Amino acid sequence: MTKKIVLVLAMLSCLALAGTARAQAPAPDPAAAAPAAPAAAAVAITDADLKAAVKPTDRANGDPDGSLTGTANDIAISDAKAGLTVADVLNQIGANRIGVNFAWTLLCGFLIMFMQAGFAVVEAGLCRAKNANHTMMMNFMVYGVGMLAYFLIGFPLQMGGAGAIANLGGTPVLNSEFVIHLFGKDIGLFGNTGYLLMHHGTYDVAVMVIFLFQMVFMDTTTTIVTGTCCERWKYSAFMVSTMFLGAFTYPIFANWAWGGGWLAMLGANFGLGHGYADFAGSGVVHSVGGITALACALILGPRIGKYTRDGKPNPIPGHDIMWVLCGCFILAFGWFGFNPGSTLAMSGNGGLRAASVAVNTMLAGMTGSFGGILYMWIRYGKPDASMSGNAFLAGLVAITAPSGFVNPVASAIIGLIAGVLVCLSCEFVERVLKVDDPVGAISVHGTNGIWGVLATGLFADGRSNYGGSWNGVAGNVTGLFYGDAGQFVAQLMGVATLVGFVFVMSYVINLFIDWFVGQRVSAKSELAGLDVPEMGAVAYPDFVLKPEPALAS
Amino acid sequence: MTKKIVLVLAMLSCLALAGTARAQAPAPDPAAAAPAAPAAAAVAITDADLKAAVKPTDRANGDPDGSLTGTANDIAISDAKAGLTVADVLNQIGANRIGVNFAWTLLCGFLIMFMQAGFAVVEAGLCRAKNANHTMMMNFMVYGVGMLAYFLIGFPLQMGGAGAIANLGGTPVLNSEFVIHLFGKDIGLFGNTGYLLMHHGTYDVAVMVIFLFQMVFMDTTTTIVTGTCCERWKYSAFMVSTMFLGAFTYPIFANWAWGGGWLAMLGANFGLGHGYADFAGSGVVHSVGGITALACALILGPRIGKYTRDGKPNPIPGHDIMWVLCGCFILAFGWFGFNPGSTLAMSGNGGLRAASVAVNTMLAGMTGSFGGILYMWIRYGKPDASMSGNAFLAGLVAITAPSGFVNPVASAIIGLIAGVLVCLSCEFVERVLKVDDPVGAISVHGTNGIWGVLATGLFADGRSNYGGSWNGVAGNVTGLFYGDAGQFVAQLMGVATLVGFVFVMSYVINLFIDWFVGQRVSAKSELAGLDVPEMGAVAYPDFVLKPEPALAS
Amino acid sequence: MTKKIVLVLAMLSCLALAGTARAQAPAPDPAAAAPAAPAAAAVAITDADLKAAVKPTDRANGDPDGSLTGTANDIAISDAKAGLTVADVLNQIGANRIGVNFAWTLLCGFLIMFMQAGFAVVEAGLCRAKNANHTMMMNFMVYGVGMLAYFLIGFPLQMGGAGAIANLGGTPVLNSEFVIHLFGKDIGLFGNTGYLLMHHGTYDVAVMVIFLFQMVFMDTTTTIVTGTCCERWKYSAFMVSTMFLGAFTYPIFANWAWGGGWLAMLGANFGLGHGYADFAGSGVVHSVGGITALACALILGPRIGKYTRDGKPNPIPGHDIMWVLCGCFILAFGWFGFNPGSTLAMSGNGGLRAASVAVNTMLAGMTGSFGGILYMWIRYGKPDASMSGNAFLAGLVAITAPSGFVNPVASAIIGLIAGVLVCLSCEFVERVLKVDDPVGAISVHGTNGIWGVLATGLFADGRSNYGGSWNGVAGNVTGLFYGDAGQFVAQLMGVATLVGFVFVMSYVINLFIDWFVGQRVSAKSELAGLDVPEMGAVAYPDFVLKPEPALAS
Repeated sequence: MTKKIVLVLAMLSCLALAGTARAQAPAPDPAAAAPAAPAAAAVAITDADLKAAVKPTDRANGDPDGSLTGTANDIAISDAKAGLTVADVLNQIGANRIGVNFAWTLLCGFLIMFMQAGFAVVEAGLCRAKNANHTMMMNFMVYGVGMLAYFLIGFPLQMGGAGAIANLGGTPVLNSEFVIHLFGKDIGLFGNTGYLLMHHGTYDVAVMVIFLFQMVFMDTTTTIVTGTCCERWKYSAFMVSTMFLGAFTYPIFANWAWGGGWLAMLGANFGLGHGYADFAGSGVVHSVGGITALACALILGPRIGKYTRDGKPNPIPGHDIMWVLCGCFILAFGWFGFNPGSTLAMSGNGGLRAASVAVNTMLAGMTGSFGGILYMWIRYGKPDASMSGNAFLAGLVAITAPSGFVNPVASAIIGLIAGVLVCLSCEFVERVLKVDDPVGAISVHGTNGIWGVLATGLFADGRSNYGGSWNGVAGNVTGLFYGDAGQFVAQLMGVATLVGFVFVMSYVINLFIDWFVGQRVSAKSELAGLDVPEMGAVAYPDFVLKPEPALAS
Repeated sequence: MTKKIVLVLAMLSCLALAGTARAQAPAPDPAAAAPAAPAAAAVAITDADLKAAVKPTDRANGDPDGSLTGTANDIAISDAKAGLTVADVLNQIGANRIGVNFAWTLLCGFLIMFMQAGFAVVEAGLCRAKNANHTMMMNFMVYGVGMLAYFLIGFPLQMGGAGAIANLGGTPVLNSEFVIHLFGKDIGLFGNTGYLLMHHGTYDVAVMVIFLFQMVFMDTTTTIVTGTCCERWKYSAFMVSTMFLGAFTYPIFANWAWGGGWLAMLGANFGLGHGYADFAGSGVVHSVGGITALACALILGPRIGKYTRDGKPNPIPGHDIMWVLCGCFILAFGWFGFNPGSTLAMSGNGGLRAASVAVNTMLAGMTGSFGGILYMWIRYGKPDASMSGNAFLAGLVAITAPSGFVNPVASAIIGLIAGVLVCLSCEFVERVLKVDDPVGAISVHGTNGIWGVLATGLFADGRSNYGGSWNGVAGNVTGLFYGDAGQFVAQLMGVATLVGFVFVMSYVINLFIDWFVGQRVSAKSELAGLDVPEMGAVAYPDFVLKPEPALAS
Repeated sequence: MTKKIVLVLAMLSCLALAGTARAQAPAPDPAAAAPAAPAAAAVAITDADLKAAVKPTDRANGDPDGSLTGTANDIAISDAKAGLTVADVLNQIGANRIGVNFAWTLLCGFLIMFMQAGFAVVEAGLCRAKNANHTMMMNFMVYGVGMLAYFLIGFPLQMGGAGAIANLGGTPVLNSEFVIHLFGKDIGLFGNTGYLLMHHGTYDVAVMVIFLFQMVFMDTTTTIVTGTCCERWKYSAFMVSTMFLGAFTYPIFANWAWGGGWLAMLGANFGLGHGYADFAGSGVVHSVGGITALACALILGPRIGKYTRDGKPNPIPGHDIMWVLCGCFILAFGWFGFNPGSTLAMSGNGGLRAASVAVNTMLAGMTGSFGGILYMWIRYGKPDASMSGNAFLAGLVAITAPSGFVNPVASAIIGLIAGVLVCLSCEFVERVLKVDDPVGAISVHGTNGIWGVLATGLFADGRSNYGGSWNGVAGNVTGLFYGDAGQFVAQLMGVATLVGFVFVMSYVINLFIDWFVGQRVSAKSELAGLDVPEMGAVAYPDFVLKPEPALAS
């Protein structure tokens, strides 16, 4: 039985019948019913009106303005014999929605991947020329090493129990979360399916989107550590350490926050707001990275010459400001994938809010750079390129968690505070903790990541609604300043977990690696620069480099 | 009351009724009506046919080819009890349209933002190593400074009266344009709502898209000036000057051209074609930037050593050709956001024409680079990297206004002329005007921006139709060569405004800044290079630099 | 006659009638039919229910969460007087589909264009500082030169007979393939329409998308050659050679593989699987580039000093490892356009499979970099930056053809083999063939392009379905390991054509160019570095360079 143009016919028939049906009523509403009344006119719509709209034959002369392309003719027909059916129309609508969301999420994921380039050149630019090859090669391989660990172990741990994600057409196969029962509730600890993207039906297009998007988030975390540890980290130790971070530390915390684990469920289980809310990962990505960087830096110790005998820090300037600031732009570009892309949608469930997320992100980066440049200008008499870059990044880090929940003015405030905070934190880490962080990653990502998590609990204005039940709690995420103290408590518990669990886990793992393979290069290698002893080649063989300046001792 | 699968049932009922209704007619058309006749078959479609298309249960084994993802199941249901309703279906269609358009416009906006990196490294690469940090830091902060000015003042001035933009779902809150009455018409001068993206309902997702997209355009303008003024501009003066440009000069002209102001209305009000037509801003962005750069350069004067005592120019080569050409590629990449993204749409109102815009853009860049390389090769005996890069950019600048209205061959011609024109203009500026423009921005953006505005009035072929009423005038934009002299007059009025108003405004503002904070660094700072006196650090501390060559005096 | 909200009325009428119709049955299902029964209630839905969903008036206060934006109100109405019609709704659905696909394909095309920057800096970074300007300028102009040739001749040859591409709304104007009749079949040899994107109706938005996307593929091919030939290629010869490659060599093979030519038809015509299957161009793009590079390198001969008198190779390290690895990241970023974008769709015909393609791509790059770094580490005692980068690229090259047809684990295996293979191939080319390839492009693109073509014929798992008839053969592409030996034979025929036809054609053309303009610069120029004699300027005028080290002779 042919169902050709069944939809149109059905509707037209309805029109005709509507006329008939309403005629039985004593006085049909003339405004509404009259136009539809004559059956002949209705039939004319099918063969004249609809066809008039689409004219496929006109395409023979091309379509310079696009008016003949993208019409009813382009609805996919599942059965050529039957022609266009109701099912085809509805399926195409669903396909369009998921198509938009896939395209958006994947393209944003690509932007995030490109942040690897930004981190690489910022970090290498901030180290000395004699370590540039080594720093670049850590950043280059961190992408591969992290991905391998995540492909084998990390992704299943993080997302194996994430459940069906409606914006991407559903991922029902990610249905295995390991839970324990505590206080009468299910407490999710880690996921347990999706190994190799093959088992248990995870060879699935929607799972692939999730994997790609989550993979690049994880890799961002691992790349933060290479910055803090550069100029003295043994390459083999770096690879092992990154593997643990990508396989275990990151995925476990990410499961708790994003994969259906217990932090996310603090709201549904214990009434603390919407549970730990971290839109795009100030805590999950940046704090985990910054805190792991701190743990590693404590184990590695400072670079030779960084501190004088009585503990005063020597400045060791980065070797190329072009790369540093160019890298900041690359990172800002990628951040437009990082934050707005975290809606995982453009069509449905508040996906359009991504526009607000994008503007919040750019505003906080802007005020961050202002906070940093003004702080340095006032305190040291001159604007400083490295700190301006770091303050810009600090603003972006700080807005990452709240970007989905706050308004533009709050974003500007959060970024401004971040820009000043990163300067204070850098001074504190360098002078009080006496931890050597060549690129400032602990302050940029660790300190400001925590600030971002807290800022969410303060500034969330209850005006965003992603399908109406964030972390399974109805209503909109609302911070302390807008009346929900429980949300702020949930954020505090997230911070406590970062400091209490992630730091300890990272410290223990890296202590073990130190014992097992040794974390630090020899003093001889360090003084010579790591490029030749570790990588076998200098970064700039054709350029004459200056002899290293004497550092105060 | 449950409305579960009400749409499908309705249609199926129609089928059944259609059979009944047509049976009353003497002889129903057998080809059309017969298949729909038996009610049983129709019912079968609901429960069998539609379900056959979507099989949600099959997802349990994954969906490697994507055939089970993106179906009727993915239409968002507003009320789970009611099930899928007609309203749901229609809303999803609208959501898909706006979702595509948001995604397209935002992603293009992100690409444009990345142009900041391109401008930064092109300009820094074209200056000397001793000024690289300073030039990079101007380009780095220009993004923040411009954005701050635009967030506070510029955006409301430019877009506060832009009205509802249908492609983005409407922005009815941007409804306040300040107008004066002249010649019996409303003459729009500036907008007046949207302050801080909060007041008067502008905390709105569609307004956010507009803000982001317009912000990156404005920032492109400001970054042009830093190129011309590099190697001698005081950092504080740069910040103040940029703030004025982002807050006033740019937004006012942009309001006139794009925000509903009087230039855009020249067609509707006075019958001059479609009014001033500038698709993506050859005039609004590039000419405003280039003309402001000229005004600033006149105030700053040439670099020490640029001219001999008798006025002959000395060549001062840029310090890194890698950055210059890499930056050109970054700019070309971003231009694919700049021009095609200016449709603000992919679905509806001629959005698909973005494909044509993209091809026009790449063709003009190509012929531009050819025009420049051949001119230099023939005139000076060798191809020249810097001028090839500038000629490439000149082609892109020139096609920016016409890209939405001309055909591929016209684009190639426009670009070719631009590539030669930029060489001639550089020679003219350097030798006749004796204005020192280290990067050629006046010629690339100023001269070729004007050429682009005029080329629109010449080559627009009347084949593009963005919803049918560009600037409120029915029909397609058509240039002089295709018969509409009025359009060319409107373009000339745009150029006159750029030269007569923007130049004067920029000159006066920057003269005031010169008086107030002083525009130029001391001769001592300039000779030493601005990096240490202004920024406190050299760009390349580890590299040995050559002593500066003696310039003819 | 006004058709205002005719669709909704029609459906509502159906509801009413459905009630009536079912009333004739003895006991209508109360859950389904009862609510719809009273006509009044149905009308209420129109004016209340639908309106309740869209509330346009609420926009006056802004829409921070996007819930009021993107609704039934945003369906484009073709005739304001008639209001929303069935045709409007169906057209909007089609417009949404094509809009998504245009946006996806164009944005992916932009990413691919940006690969030009990646190739440029990788190649320039791998050459010596004295040739950096020349190498950059080849890479810069290769984009223009290739595009010019393709605009004039190449595109029509390649795609003139490609037929209607449904994912982009159809391109019926590309309907002219030159065929010969052989073995009773039509054997397509080249296309023949689309000149200047104007003639025969090719001034068409969908043709523009195809042109842009195919142009950037072609340009990738041409940029491969500049790497192998750098440091000794005469600039004029490079331009002529690139023009031939972009006008003839590439387009002809690409026509055979992708434009409807005979290789693609091996399945439909001769039952060999689905014909030559090359999803995104391991063969079409990378092998053609690598094989042409080999042909040119044979003609050019090795650089002075590369080999000692008794044929032992001297290592000549690249001058800047920052650029090399940064360029690899840029290329990896662009590759996310290259492979996933080759679906040309997100909505319909398996477009969602792009997600799987993206993950396959990243996995193969990852395992490739592992293969290379471990091979070098084990064989030479240290990880090597240049080879790690090349191995990463080799993995990406190898997955390019199979990415659309294989699963994640197979992708990882293909990449791992590629990473080792590129090291072996580099050694073979350098030591056995004694061909000088400064950047390793012959091995990265030539060798691994062939490996990718073969891997498709081995690992394609028959789980992907792009509309169900790849190359006109029903069913899914399936490799030898999954049971289809014919597919592997088709792949072998592709490789034979690459080696037997493309190599010979490239060799003959470049031999002719050598005779006509001379391919190689003078020894004097080469020893001095090509920057001054060929380009008129050094790349780094402000930096002190080392005197060149003596090479063993």
